[in-house]
Amino acid sequence: MNGQYAPIGIRVAVENNKEVVEVIVQRPREQGSRFKPFDLGVSAQWLQVQRRKSLGRVGLNPRELALVDRIKRLKKEAGSHSPSAWTLAKLIPELRLKVDACFLSNPYATNLFLMHFHREVVRPRKLRALLELYPSQNRVIGAKLGRVLELEADSIFVGNGAAEIIQAILHRFTCEKILINLPTFSPYYEFARPETKIVTNLLRKEDNFHFDPAAYLKLVHRERPDTLVLINPNNPDGGYIPHASMLELLAELRFVPNVIVDESFIHFACEGNGFTYRSVADQVSRFPNLIVVKSMSKDFGVAGIRAGYAVMAPDRVNTLLSNGFLWNSSGLAEYFFDLYSRPDFQARYERERIRFVRNSRRFFAALAKIDGLHVYPTFANFALVELRDYLSAEELVCRLLIRRGIYTRTCDDKKGLEPGKFVRIAARNRPENAYMIRSLRRLMG
Amino acid sequence: MNGQYAPIGIRVAVENNKEVVEVIVQRPREQGSRFKPFDLGVSAQWLQVQRRKSLGRVGLNPRELALVDRIKRLKKEAGSHSPSAWTLAKLIPELRLKVDACFLSNPYATNLFLMHFHREVVRPRKLRALLELYPSQNRVIGAKLGRVLELEADSIFVGNGAAEIIQAILHRFTCEKILINLPTFSPYYEFARPETKIVTNLLRKEDNFHFDPAAYLKLVHRERPDTLVLINPNNPDGGYIPHASMLELLAELRFVPNVIVDESFIHFACEGNGFTYRSVADQVSRFPNLIVVKSMSKDFGVAGIRAGYAVMAPDRVNTLLSNGFLWNSSGLAEYFFDLYSRPDFQARYERERIRFVRNSRRFFAALAKIDGLHVYPTFANFALVELRDYLSAEELVCRLLIRRGIYTRTCDDKKGLEPGKFVRIAARNRPENAYMIRSLRRLMG
Repeated sequence: MNGQYAPIGIRVAVENNKEVVEVIVQRPREQGSRFKPFDLGVSAQWLQVQRRKSLGRVGLNPRELALVDRIKRLKKEAGSHSPSAWTLAKLIPELRLKVDACFLSNPYATNLFLMHFHREVVRPRKLRALLELYPSQNRVIGAKLGRVLELEADSIFVGNGAAEIIQAILHRFTCEKILINLPTFSPYYEFARPETKIVTNLLRKEDNFHFDPAAYLKLVHRERPDTLVLINPNNPDGGYIPHASMLELLAELRFVPNVIVDESFIHFACEGNGFTYRSVADQVSRFPNLIVVKSMSKDFGVAGIRAGYAVMAPDRVNTLLSNGFLWNSSGLAEYFFDLYSRPDFQARYERERIRFVRNSRRFFAALAKIDGLHVYPTFANFALVELRDYLSAEELVCRLLIRRGIYTRTCDDKKGLEPGKFVRIAARNRPENAYMIRSLRRLMG
Repeated sequence: MNGQYAPIGIRVAVENNKEVVEVIVQRPREQGSRFKPFDLGVSAQWLQVQRRKSLGRVGLNPRELALVDRIKRLKKEAGSHSPSAWTLAKLIPELRLKVDACFLSNPYATNLFLMHFHREVVRPRKLRALLELYPSQNRVIGAKLGRVLELEADSIFVGNGAAEIIQAILHRFTCEKILINLPTFSPYYEFARPETKIVTNLLRKEDNFHFDPAAYLKLVHRERPDTLVLINPNNPDGGYIPHASMLELLAELRFVPNVIVDESFIHFACEGNGFTYRSVADQVSRFPNLIVVKSMSKDFGVAGIRAGYAVMAPDRVNTLLSNGFLWNSSGLAEYFFDLYSRPDFQARYERERIRFVRNSRRFFAALAKIDGLHVYPTFANFALVELRDYLSAEELVCRLLIRRGIYTRTCDDKKGLEPGKFVRIAARNRPENAYMIRSLRRLMG
């Protein structure tokens, strides 16, 4: 064995249906470099011992290796997003999905919505009207939403999911340069027009992905972007800009033409120990450059319905509606927004929201206690987890999926995060959370 | 009475909750000009006789007049589209909608879809998966659709209804000038970017709205638009360009960058007495400038689902998907496309399609026999009807709606058609068609 390279462990990956073993060595200045075993002349016996030690009970058999390959192929086709659990379950029926901790949603709210939907639509046989007829136009739905949000109806743009809204904003309002934080939700740079220049503000893991307003303002003054994106809490790390800081920041950012604040996870972000949350949607009347984006897929767990909205200056809504986006809501989305606007539903939803936030806090605390996992502080319903072991993110995700039916996502495709190290895990309901903790303890133990 | 103006009838309209009576006079060169009764000094008695004669049993009482005002207000808010029957029923619950002949769809196909949906989704409790999870991405759904359409998967772009596709094409591919036929489906000019110049090719009622390829080609060579729109069959007149002519035309139009053929009504367009229809979607591989747009809301009566697709050169699909349109289908739309791709469903649908086309032909023939209505030849599932009486289009539509619960649409907002004269009536199922014929006979009789 080459004395210069002291092997400290191995890394097992799956390539073309085969397990590929790499040896990780310790060198004075290059920690964790990867070599093929034969490069280093390590003995087969040493390798075997390391393999058992590293993988424990998680080594994969040939059937499982084939599944890993299919999962990786699907993932590759999905680009910088995870294939939906729906696609996964249909295209790889051998996987027995038990927990979808890739999808970021409140499952209690989904139950609540479905209970209403069955009682008010399916059982009284009103489904036909929802599916057959043209839903109302954008403004009609926006007006209903305005009442419950206590916002001017003409400042609301209803979208076919937040994805459509992000696309609309980046294509219509962004001019030359957009500033995003990294890591971030990828559509904020992927949906930009090809000619848009993208500049980044790196949130560092060493600072727990903390957002520093002073440094950010300096960067904005230096780069002079015309569009800023602040996701609050941020995806995928769950970092949060407190309401008071956000208001100060908005006041400082008056000179920037477009300030996008994405509050898709705001319902989970409670300051202090209480359970209230604070949106900046009501600040649009003060700051006409502010655009607040809100997905409904997260807090209500209804991604299949495609519902979202944005709050922005009325002239911007007019610009968007003047040549498109007329019938972009489905009948189901309209029913959802109708329900959402009802005080009785709001009261029930509020209970389920608090229940979910409470359970999620417990889940993240338990997650943080598992050896080999570092959990970053989160104000959202998911946690960014760093692996401090030789298992790679992909290996953990594949093993959780194949062995335990738990769907999580690697952050290997997330710009601003070191590949192979990060996994994002969503909180689910209590039994699912408990099952995830048990499974992770076993895999990491 | 002024001898120059010979009163030939009256026109009754509703303005601000009041019946306003105008007198129509005959002048040598200005037929049908309108005057207030006092301008002409006609006697109250003459007016009363004319009013009874003109309106027959269709005069409106104060309650009905108030409803007309509310309908007109809703219509005004909906711009150049009709408020959906759904909006109408919710905002004016006093209206008892029986037949939605404004919505252009095959009700038999809706029944078929709903039968499958109840059996395969609702009853086995699979609705949750459709609503909760993210649906598949655009390409995954496009691939499934490609198989049943026998087209290359990478030439299919799936849309949140045809409306989204029209918007995408006009915003991304149209450069400076678009040529549309008039009358037409309004999004083809409304969704154009403000800087796009719109030129028109008028289809004349004197020619039965016949499309003349030779004259059209001349116009294209003269105007040099970069985008052409051909809706086949055309909305709102139902005029049809035969498949052979369309192929010849496409060959002549190779030099135009974008040729949009909207085949949203093609399933109803059967040449000769048979029931087959011919799409040009398979010509995209021959003509890379061709974009075929297809709504699914018409042939399947599922407008609430928002499902459509377009067939275009793969590099165009890539352009659209490269920065947006990732998750624009809902879970329901994905189920719909799954179902549509199945041979068993296709076979059942084919029977319902033929049944509907057969019934529609009978309906249009019966419609054409009603006094005072002129029905233009149609290859679609609707007919453009010209009123050859003193009743205005709006009066007929309001009376049908209030008195008989039949929802049709005036074409007063359709460019290229004389306002006040045209109504578009969709064919529905047999009992509904029979009810419409009875109602129209009574109103016109």
